[in-house]
Amino acid sequence: MLVCARCGASFPDETNLWRCTCGGPFDYRFEQALSFDPEQLSRRHDGFWKYGRALGLRHPEKAARLGEGQTPLLPLEWDGRTVFWKLDFLLPTGSYKDRGTAVMAASLAETGRREIVEDSSGNAGSSLAAYCAASGITCHVFVPASTSEGKCLQIGSYGAHIHRVPGSREDTTAAAVAMGETHFYSSHNWNPWFALGVRTWALEAWEQMDFRAPDAVVVPAGQGSLVIGAFRAFQELAACGAISRMPRIYAVQAAECAPLAEAFDRGEDEPAAIEKGHTFAEGIASAEPVRGFQVIQAVRETGGRFVRVNNGQIAAGFKSLARRGLFVEPTSAVVAPALSELIKEGQILPNEITLTLLSGTGLKAVDHLAELEQIERKYL
Amino acid sequence: MLVCARCGASFPDETNLWRCTCGGPFDYRFEQALSFDPEQLSRRHDGFWKYGRALGLRHPEKAARLGEGQTPLLPLEWDGRTVFWKLDFLLPTGSYKDRGTAVMAASLAETGRREIVEDSSGNAGSSLAAYCAASGITCHVFVPASTSEGKCLQIGSYGAHIHRVPGSREDTTAAAVAMGETHFYSSHNWNPWFALGVRTWALEAWEQMDFRAPDAVVVPAGQGSLVIGAFRAFQELAACGAISRMPRIYAVQAAECAPLAEAFDRGEDEPAAIEKGHTFAEGIASAEPVRGFQVIQAVRETGGRFVRVNNGQIAAGFKSLARRGLFVEPTSAVVAPALSELIKEGQILPNEITLTLLSGTGLKAVDHLAELEQIERKYL
Repeated sequence: MLVCARCGASFPDETNLWRCTCGGPFDYRFEQALSFDPEQLSRRHDGFWKYGRALGLRHPEKAARLGEGQTPLLPLEWDGRTVFWKLDFLLPTGSYKDRGTAVMAASLAETGRREIVEDSSGNAGSSLAAYCAASGITCHVFVPASTSEGKCLQIGSYGAHIHRVPGSREDTTAAAVAMGETHFYSSHNWNPWFALGVRTWALEAWEQMDFRAPDAVVVPAGQGSLVIGAFRAFQELAACGAISRMPRIYAVQAAECAPLAEAFDRGEDEPAAIEKGHTFAEGIASAEPVRGFQVIQAVRETGGRFVRVNNGQIAAGFKSLARRGLFVEPTSAVVAPALSELIKEGQILPNEITLTLLSGTGLKAVDHLAELEQIERKYL
Repeated sequence: MLVCARCGASFPDETNLWRCTCGGPFDYRFEQALSFDPEQLSRRHDGFWKYGRALGLRHPEKAARLGEGQTPLLPLEWDGRTVFWKLDFLLPTGSYKDRGTAVMAASLAETGRREIVEDSSGNAGSSLAAYCAASGITCHVFVPASTSEGKCLQIGSYGAHIHRVPGSREDTTAAAVAMGETHFYSSHNWNPWFALGVRTWALEAWEQMDFRAPDAVVVPAGQGSLVIGAFRAFQELAACGAISRMPRIYAVQAAECAPLAEAFDRGEDEPAAIEKGHTFAEGIASAEPVRGFQVIQAVRETGGRFVRVNNGQIAAGFKSLARRGLFVEPTSAVVAPALSELIKEGQILPNEITLTLLSGTGLKAVDHLAELEQIERKYL
């Protein structure tokens, strides 16, 4: 069953609406409480599909697969603390979005959708294009006209139809929504199955940490799906007694686009209206996050906070990770300076265990690396 | 112990030679026969490091790690046959080379090397740069001056020193060998630990296929490390009774650069002298493979054969895989037309199980995709 996260109205799974009539986003509600059995999970090796019923699908065994899930969890010291790095840039299309789009495409296939419309400026578009290809669903991806040729080639290679829209990122969304009049609009930011899928990153990490919860979680936040995913996963694990307490969730935003951090610091519940500046972390430069109120709530409820990082810090973080052999996109690198700041400020204590995630491969950002070198020179 | 694959002379592990005084490549020889215990392997989840002693290291537990190994094995129907696809393009730097360079870097660290020299036109260079970064080894990568900016940026990001050499691929090797007078020349094509590491692809596949051997193996062959790796892995498994018979190994070469296929067809043991043409499978365009005689022997001994694919077939294979959601580099795509040919010719029977591998991510080849579209239009 789908439930509006704002007004609480409920809708059937098969609804043709992509959001509630009140304008709120849908959440998936499980009819029975979930349980997670370490014994059983240890015996299965089929990626995150082992989480079966928790994926909200009728037939998870029929979902199209591309080798998703069970990414490595790498323990790596950082400024004297033990940090576990979930390497989600090693998912099939090169970003954590695969967790969400794999489940979303399976749900679209279950409800008989043959053709869908998405808007994205990057990773989500290519990820959904791949899973639609594997699922036999025709996919239209609306992108801003300024999107790099490389990304468009990846999306096009999967067989998706690319629609380049002049103007702002918001103009792209408007064009996709307009096509949604005649086709099913299936934006990953609104789709509740996407959110269900993304939370498997935290479930897997729990499993890989010998079925324990970390003390702190540090993740990038644009639309905030990683924050919401971790919050729900650990809530569900706590509810069934699989872990004894919730970790604190720290969300990292780009200083030049921080509507959630701004609202959080002011004690407000909704994303603040901001003027977006140029950030190198383009993957989290979301000025109007659809589920922003849920992200703020998750961070506040767990006793975490927001961290802002500027372009100079991002460039240094990218370099620092690459010099350890981890080549990720600048958006992913924001967690590096955030970890250092939280450790320096004493928010993460010496004996605490921290979990973080590297969200996307550096191979998608090669055309930006020269710019990043310049930024680093300018700032450092 | 290292043994020359040509003259049989033996050398200690710590030798400063990168090849035998007779000019032959070194193989690593185990003092005691290897054994593989399914029970024990099932219980460990640390990538290919679970193969411990079989990696030829004194202290595999000390090796620098970047989340390598245990890539997904995807069953996917192909022309009516069950084919298992080992997704090695999901390794940390985006290619199967990580298996080899991870073990090679660990061996270099064990023998106290602080600075090494490699030559590569692509994936191996960035892979070794990453593992040297993680291992604290200074790495010099010699590349042809024509190497794409993107690849150089990836290599440079890991902190390796790039040396661009004008002229042919052979000129690049000569320049690296020259620097090897004063630094340790550690070419992945010659290094015996690289070969040890690469064979984990087949060991993992055996494990993922419920500890059974496939009937046929189909892999790309340039220098031929995947062929040699599969051959040795299945030989070792057969020797200790873990499998009952060897699979047939089919090696795929680009029609425009096929010194091994040429020699095999003529019944010869050494790679043929050829005139290299332009192929889209640049990763296997090796005119003078160092271990060519071993590759030919492996294919011949298992009852397999070589398959040649042209640019039109590669372009079609790339598209066919991408349309199923698998975005790989053109070099990797050669297995697609080769599978179709072997099935059509009745070399792979309906009830047989085939194992193949996708070696590198399409994200590294984005700048070539436009060209590939043209090639496809020209040929099809």
